[in-house]
Amino acid sequence: MSVATSVCAPLPVLGRDVTVPLADGSQVPYAALDYAASAPALQRVWDDVAAYAPYYGSVHRGAGHLSRLSTELFENARRTVAGFLDCRADDQVVFTRSTTDSLNLLAAALPEGCQVFVFEAEHHAALLPWRHARLTVLDAPRGPRQAVDALERALADRAPHGPALVCVTGASNVTGELWPVRELAAAAHAHGARIVLDAAQLAPHHPVSVRDLDVDWVAFSGHKLYAPFGSGVLAGRPDWLGSAEPYLAGGGASRSVVRRADGGVDVEWQEGAARHEAGSPNVIGAHAIASACEALTEAGFDNLLARERYLIDRVRAGLAEVPGVRFLSLFGDDAPRVGVLSFVVDGWDSAGLATALSSGYGIGVRAGLFCAHPLLRTLLGGDPEARGDCGTPGDLDAVRVSFGAGTPDEHVERFVRAVRELVAEGGPCGQRTSAG
Amino acid sequence: MSVATSVCAPLPVLGRDVTVPLADGSQVPYAALDYAASAPALQRVWDDVAAYAPYYGSVHRGAGHLSRLSTELFENARRTVAGFLDCRADDQVVFTRSTTDSLNLLAAALPEGCQVFVFEAEHHAALLPWRHARLTVLDAPRGPRQAVDALERALADRAPHGPALVCVTGASNVTGELWPVRELAAAAHAHGARIVLDAAQLAPHHPVSVRDLDVDWVAFSGHKLYAPFGSGVLAGRPDWLGSAEPYLAGGGASRSVVRRADGGVDVEWQEGAARHEAGSPNVIGAHAIASACEALTEAGFDNLLARERYLIDRVRAGLAEVPGVRFLSLFGDDAPRVGVLSFVVDGWDSAGLATALSSGYGIGVRAGLFCAHPLLRTLLGGDPEARGDCGTPGDLDAVRVSFGAGTPDEHVERFVRAVRELVAEGGPCGQRTSAG
Repeated sequence: MSVATSVCAPLPVLGRDVTVPLADGSQVPYAALDYAASAPALQRVWDDVAAYAPYYGSVHRGAGHLSRLSTELFENARRTVAGFLDCRADDQVVFTRSTTDSLNLLAAALPEGCQVFVFEAEHHAALLPWRHARLTVLDAPRGPRQAVDALERALADRAPHGPALVCVTGASNVTGELWPVRELAAAAHAHGARIVLDAAQLAPHHPVSVRDLDVDWVAFSGHKLYAPFGSGVLAGRPDWLGSAEPYLAGGGASRSVVRRADGGVDVEWQEGAARHEAGSPNVIGAHAIASACEALTEAGFDNLLARERYLIDRVRAGLAEVPGVRFLSLFGDDAPRVGVLSFVVDGWDSAGLATALSSGYGIGVRAGLFCAHPLLRTLLGGDPEARGDCGTPGDLDAVRVSFGAGTPDEHVERFVRAVRELVAEGGPCGQRTSAG
Repeated sequence: MSVATSVCAPLPVLGRDVTVPLADGSQVPYAALDYAASAPALQRVWDDVAAYAPYYGSVHRGAGHLSRLSTELFENARRTVAGFLDCRADDQVVFTRSTTDSLNLLAAALPEGCQVFVFEAEHHAALLPWRHARLTVLDAPRGPRQAVDALERALADRAPHGPALVCVTGASNVTGELWPVRELAAAAHAHGARIVLDAAQLAPHHPVSVRDLDVDWVAFSGHKLYAPFGSGVLAGRPDWLGSAEPYLAGGGASRSVVRRADGGVDVEWQEGAARHEAGSPNVIGAHAIASACEALTEAGFDNLLARERYLIDRVRAGLAEVPGVRFLSLFGDDAPRVGVLSFVVDGWDSAGLATALSSGYGIGVRAGLFCAHPLLRTLLGGDPEARGDCGTPGDLDAVRVSFGAGTPDEHVERFVRAVRELVAEGGPCGQRTSAG
């Protein structure tokens, strides 16, 4: 009899041998199932960072051998990312600190009078940066077609019919569902708008082609792409970025600074990516992202996707047998998705369930509202009381399990078994709520 | 006969065994003498990062063991930095990406109508962030007393006599000279102004006490403090930071997000440091900074300073014998300074000299304007044509040699010998300019 397993081995990640204590005093290997928040570093990324670290030097600014080597490494990282994203020839790759930072940068580069359109399904990193623009938040659609139709209507109806930007996620950080990015991009362009793809949850799981999707910009984070060294990316069209004031003011972004007679200074700013990268670049962070891009490309997204589909099916099939489990979904159970699934269990407090998974099984998931309050409110109904932050659960919240290229089958199998046991038996820690 | 050496051993840094090729094909150990741009990682910092990396997890957001451990580590890093800076009890420590980022954050938190005062001696990171404020750039003073007097006058004369901020460096990134921070802070406060200390060049060399200096904020970069992992710090008074709009808009900075009927969103923002740290924190970067703070404290600044003074004296004495060498200075040759010295050599092109130091001796220094154009213009006279960026030399520029806790005596000895040989003999590469 053959035993079903996933189609290829997981990619080696740091922490794969880490054990953690359970409430009963025993130790088990840690099952990191919170990839959607932050993924472990690929071993390959770590090895590349470690190999480079002794050669670290000031970027763009030194005459020494290691400065020149570091500058080359940094600019090569830019080219690697451009290749990974299949950018157009004139696209710019700006290194930022995260997706949040990337979208705040783009928000600071909007042309005068630009209107911004987002769906309420976005996480806060994509929902909030447009605070100084005229923002239209569209209802969470119940299917890809509905999303495109709603966007078309909103863009057609906008008044005045001036510059507009659509910001859309590639894969939801709550449901894991894939969004119809190519179709939304076509709709945006048909109505004279631009579109930025928030690929924070997409890029770690899926190939992203700026050309094929025909998006104007794409943003992602190193720390979700197995490269947690404080860096992120905004890549895309140079026009808005080139016309905008520099994101940060300082050295590196300035070409020439001259005192004025009136006590101020005249500044001639850089063009290109450097315009928005003031301060010493995070060369280790950029190198780590480039290393991850190479590692994922070499592993092959076909393999990674096949493996991930297997794990998704295991979670869905495994939890389907558990009474009271309900997956959160906008587009329906069979919609294509990445390895990010959120669910609630009737009568269970999500935070309690997450704690029991940790203390009883050494499994790390997340409970809460996932920095996506409006979406959770829509999916769960009612008015979730977000008492602390987006990470702190309220009366209504959910459990999210998420995984990726480094996840061994055993983690997912353990997770399914754990939920089953906890729900069936009240679990090792008796976390069932009084309402349960 | 005793041979003079510095008073204690250098702290081990990454790259101490790296060799680089010379123009003649031979290999020599690399002499990193561009610490003022970016310092190598302390071995201790690297070891701490490497020990933590397998335990990396999402900060503030996960229920798993590694998420809780990472959150604790991140918040401990904040406390370590607060201790390192001798902060007041209610001061906030915000993790940023660099000094540039820290000062841009503070610039975004200025109260309405705030006037900003800086000396033209500042580097661009301290000179440029105040682009949306009313900025007064004061002449570079020729002594600490003159600096205080000039600031007093400017603050007293300001009209209207509203909120004001003074931004001052602790140690110049060009001359290495120490600025009279305590006296400038007293002057600022006497005139109802606030003061932020740019400690980018001070903190790696000198103890910094927020309480003793009585500064309102202090900013520094990890990458100059032997922790080049994309992080920096802004620490100080919570009032302006707490009243300001969040620096970045996104998850982590938002407590609650609710859709409005008009299509927008209502956001309740976090208080405390989280308000300005939207997005997933760079926990490795914060941990690295904390590790460096601990390592420097344990090594003892008395030891580090004594060692650095020895190296400074070696450079000054060694180059004093070289004809045509002129050190750049505002406060005079005997002013107290850190291990950052800039100089020109009559008849030599600075870029050519720096290149010759690299190709002939394996020494990494920097030639250029050091992201401090107005100061260089004042010190060198004339109008330096900054053709590229602050790192790209123009017709008038200088060579900067800088070092710190990881610098062995041999690097400085080699540097002195190299300059001497190059100037005396035209050097191995014949870099003497036609004007020389």
